[in-house]
Amino acid sequence: MKKIIVVGATGRLGRLVVGGLKDYEVIRAGRSGPDLKIDALDFESVSDVFASIGSFDALISCAGVRAPFKTFEELTMEDFALGLSNKCFSQLNLAKAAIPFLTENGSITLTSGIIGDEPILSGSCAAAANGALNMCVSTLAAEYAGRLRINIVSPSIIENSVEDYGMVFDGFEPTSEKRIIEAYRRTISAPISGRVLCQTRSL
Amino acid sequence: MKKIIVVGATGRLGRLVVGGLKDYEVIRAGRSGPDLKIDALDFESVSDVFASIGSFDALISCAGVRAPFKTFEELTMEDFALGLSNKCFSQLNLAKAAIPFLTENGSITLTSGIIGDEPILSGSCAAAANGALNMCVSTLAAEYAGRLRINIVSPSIIENSVEDYGMVFDGFEPTSEKRIIEAYRRTISAPISGRVLCQTRSL
Ligand SMILES: NC(=O)c1ccc[n+]([C@@H]2O[C@H](COP(=O)([O-])OP(=O)(O)OC[C@H]3O[C@@H](n4cnc5c(N)ncnc54)[C@H](OP(=O)(O)O)[C@@H]3O)[C@@H](O)[C@H]2O)c1
Ligand SMILES: NC(=O)c1ccc[n+]([C@@H]2O[C@H](COP(=O)([O-])OP(=O)(O)OC[C@H]3O[C@@H](n4cnc5c(N)ncnc54)[C@H](OP(=O)(O)O)[C@@H]3O)[C@@H](O)[C@H]2O)c1
Repeated sequence: MKKIIVVGATGRLGRLVVGGLKDYEVIRAGRSGPDLKIDALDFESVSDVFASIGSFDALISCAGVRAPFKTFEELTMEDFALGLSNKCFSQLNLAKAAIPFLTENGSITLTSGIIGDEPILSGSCAAAANGALNMCVSTLAAEYAGRLRINIVSPSIIENSVEDYGMVFDGFEPTSEKRIIEAYRRTISAPISGRVLCQTRSL
Repeated sequence: MKKIIVVGATGRLGRLVVGGLKDYEVIRAGRSGPDLKIDALDFESVSDVFASIGSFDALISCAGVRAPFKTFEELTMEDFALGLSNKCFSQLNLAKAAIPFLTENGSITLTSGIIGDEPILSGSCAAAANGALNMCVSTLAAEYAGRLRINIVSPSIIENSVEDYGMVFDGFEPTSEKRIIEAYRRTISAPISGRVLCQTRSL
């Protein structure tokens, strides 16, 4: 049975993904575990955490570390640096740290989101982080072609989060729980790499 | 006559843009001037430089501050932070600093590029910076709607740069000098905001 580490396993997104991977051996990871304690923001530490597992077949990052939501007028360049570090570099760092422990043709899946594909007021920093993730994945896929696969899932507001965040995303079609599970499952099994799945743009 | 500040005016791209704006009052800016000395990497200083001009109608950023070109294996998160700061935040900081001095419905044009839309080996950091720029512009445009416009030009390798960088972009259709000039001119005059012009993706 394939072994899959899901970082952010207890969050709104992570719970859903874990629930959709019942036919895999899933290691639920996050600051509070429950199976594996990992802090994605402590960049130096994550390699040792992965080493404690030995080898695994896939890494899925659903960690919910947010970028500052402020207007561009309020955002300082320190805010942008923090937002990119929290939301983008933390995931790239998880990916880099996982690579030596991935089985052949293993899979890495990171998570971005619709903010930036569509404007959200005060969302320019989150947009920048999502854009950075979405745009670098084709290069990473090319560099690791034949050794491992790396993809991104970019959901709209997820059905299970409408109650909490719905006011910011009023009029956005939520990504269904079914579609989320399909997207993460596809990144594990399908021969795809360098792709941004679930990405939508209102026409 | 509209007054336009072009940062990076002496570079491969900037020279071309300046040459295409002969019917405007152009202030050529860069670390060595020639009309206005500005260092886009000295984030705190640029506001005072713009203040020395008083008001202006458009800011165009063609500054050539590069991201590290290394494989993902070689890139540290400090490299990513540096690349984003040099190539993306420096331009966002120019934009922020210019805003108080822009005339009504003035125009800001930043520059990204094709790296990331198409994979270039060792280009993941440049790709991330381009993605961050491309993805946050629609949000910035929305926040300043009715007050100023902000757009991005994302060229492929430019015709005049093929001799220097052509080997990295072999088989890419270069962006013609005519197309570059049209794109930057359009951002100054057309009622567009939040757009990424010149963006191409091979099909
Ligand atoms: N929910 C949506 O509708 C939606 C839509 C599009 C994109 N997204 C993106 O999906 C990601 C997850 O969002 P979410 O709504 O599921 O967030 P969430 O409900 O706040 O869940 C956060 C999860 O990440 C873990 N986490 C937080 N900080 C961490 C750290 N430093 N290291 C490791 N794990 C950490 C949390 O567990 P611990 O506290 O135990 O660490 C928790 O499991 C975010 O990047 C978000 O932008 C969400
Ligand atoms: N050339 C292409 O084919 C191409 C294609 C797509 C995108 N681009 C992008 O366009 C931008 C310009 O590229 P380029 O090829 O024209 O570069 P370039 O030939 O190296 O020119 C760099 C220009 O930027 C100025 N500059 C450098 N550092 C600066 C700083 N800290 N503050 C202010 N100005 C600074 C330089 O003048 P000083 O030295 O006097 O400061 C010079 O005018 C880059 O972001 C590049 O990625 C270029």
